[in-house]
Amino acid sequence: MLTLHGYYRSSTSYRVRIALNLKGLEWRHAGVDLLAGEDRSADYLAVNPQGLLPTLELADGRYLSQSMAILEYLDEAHPEPSLLPAEPLARARVRSLALQIACDIHPLNNLRALKYLRSEFGQGDAAVNAWYRHWVAIEFEALERRLVADPATGSCCHGDAVSQADVCLVPQVYNAERFAVDMAAYPTLARIAAHCRALPAFTAAAPERQPDAR
Amino acid sequence: MLTLHGYYRSSTSYRVRIALNLKGLEWRHAGVDLLAGEDRSADYLAVNPQGLLPTLELADGRYLSQSMAILEYLDEAHPEPSLLPAEPLARARVRSLALQIACDIHPLNNLRALKYLRSEFGQGDAAVNAWYRHWVAIEFEALERRLVADPATGSCCHGDAVSQADVCLVPQVYNAERFAVDMAAYPTLARIAAHCRALPAFTAAAPERQPDAR
Repeated sequence: MLTLHGYYRSSTSYRVRIALNLKGLEWRHAGVDLLAGEDRSADYLAVNPQGLLPTLELADGRYLSQSMAILEYLDEAHPEPSLLPAEPLARARVRSLALQIACDIHPLNNLRALKYLRSEFGQGDAAVNAWYRHWVAIEFEALERRLVADPATGSCCHGDAVSQADVCLVPQVYNAERFAVDMAAYPTLARIAAHCRALPAFTAAAPERQPDAR
Repeated sequence: MLTLHGYYRSSTSYRVRIALNLKGLEWRHAGVDLLAGEDRSADYLAVNPQGLLPTLELADGRYLSQSMAILEYLDEAHPEPSLLPAEPLARARVRSLALQIACDIHPLNNLRALKYLRSEFGQGDAAVNAWYRHWVAIEFEALERRLVADPATGSCCHGDAVSQADVCLVPQVYNAERFAVDMAAYPTLARIAAHCRALPAFTAAAPERQPDAR
């Protein structure tokens, strides 16, 4: 069976949970408690030398890291249902939307970056939250403009089939809501996220449904 | 012909230049002057709603954004030589190495993040450089440990064939050297970067060889 080393609130772990559920794969949760620093423990560094979440452990004990690489692997090893459309330009559109979130929002707002702002630059809650909301705002605005203007957008980011882009969008919206970002400014993103969240694979992957949720 | 909207020092533009050269594709350079703020101009925002580099313009005028999505597209549209190995687990390894750079180093050290630290948090050169070097150091250390311990590593990050991982590594090393990071601490990364930099596709893609270099 597959084992996902992750944390209920980690949005990169959440991406992989959605993908595993969409593929109908059996997997078990192995909790890595970020607040207790378990991501920096020798045990977890042996699993993932970066000390970041998530890591997918295969049945034979091999480890895969980086959530976007794991999504691509799952599509190659378990092609149905695909998280990418068939045609190369459509695939490029989906990957570009997904990577806009994975590269240009998440890393800047990850826990370790926010910790650095506090510990090294002496920034408090208001300044750290402003930093968080700044990156969400400029990228959600750009994503909203991309999606609303493009006839390729449907009930999901690309047509009516769930793709990598939706798998990244829903956890990012969950995360933004924790930081009190008002989604009313992004009606297309809010509509797509609401549609996807109601699907069983997304519902079962939600943070509050995980065994380590507090 | 293909047109690459980029900037000579942009490491994400540099990645795509290398890939275009490796594939033997004809392309022309369209300069977007970051220092003059051309990335925020109405003209460029019509090309790329994110206002980030690079954008690949296809012969029919369509635009592709996000360098990692462009690398995947180039591999699908122009399969030879491939930037990914054939086997799914090997592909996952290469993508994970590439994404470690693309997600966990570059976005934190991109010009717009460094500008925010100066303008909003009032940080000066020393603090901004320390932030830059912090993310390079922890990720280069982890990358070095991953590569040195793995028999899959060869003259390149994966065996002896250039892959996505090398295409990301060389521009990141170039960037780190601009910030005076000492590569002696990362002998495997330094060895692979030196090997790849000497290959014609990498040499022709180097920042100092571009028409907008200063």
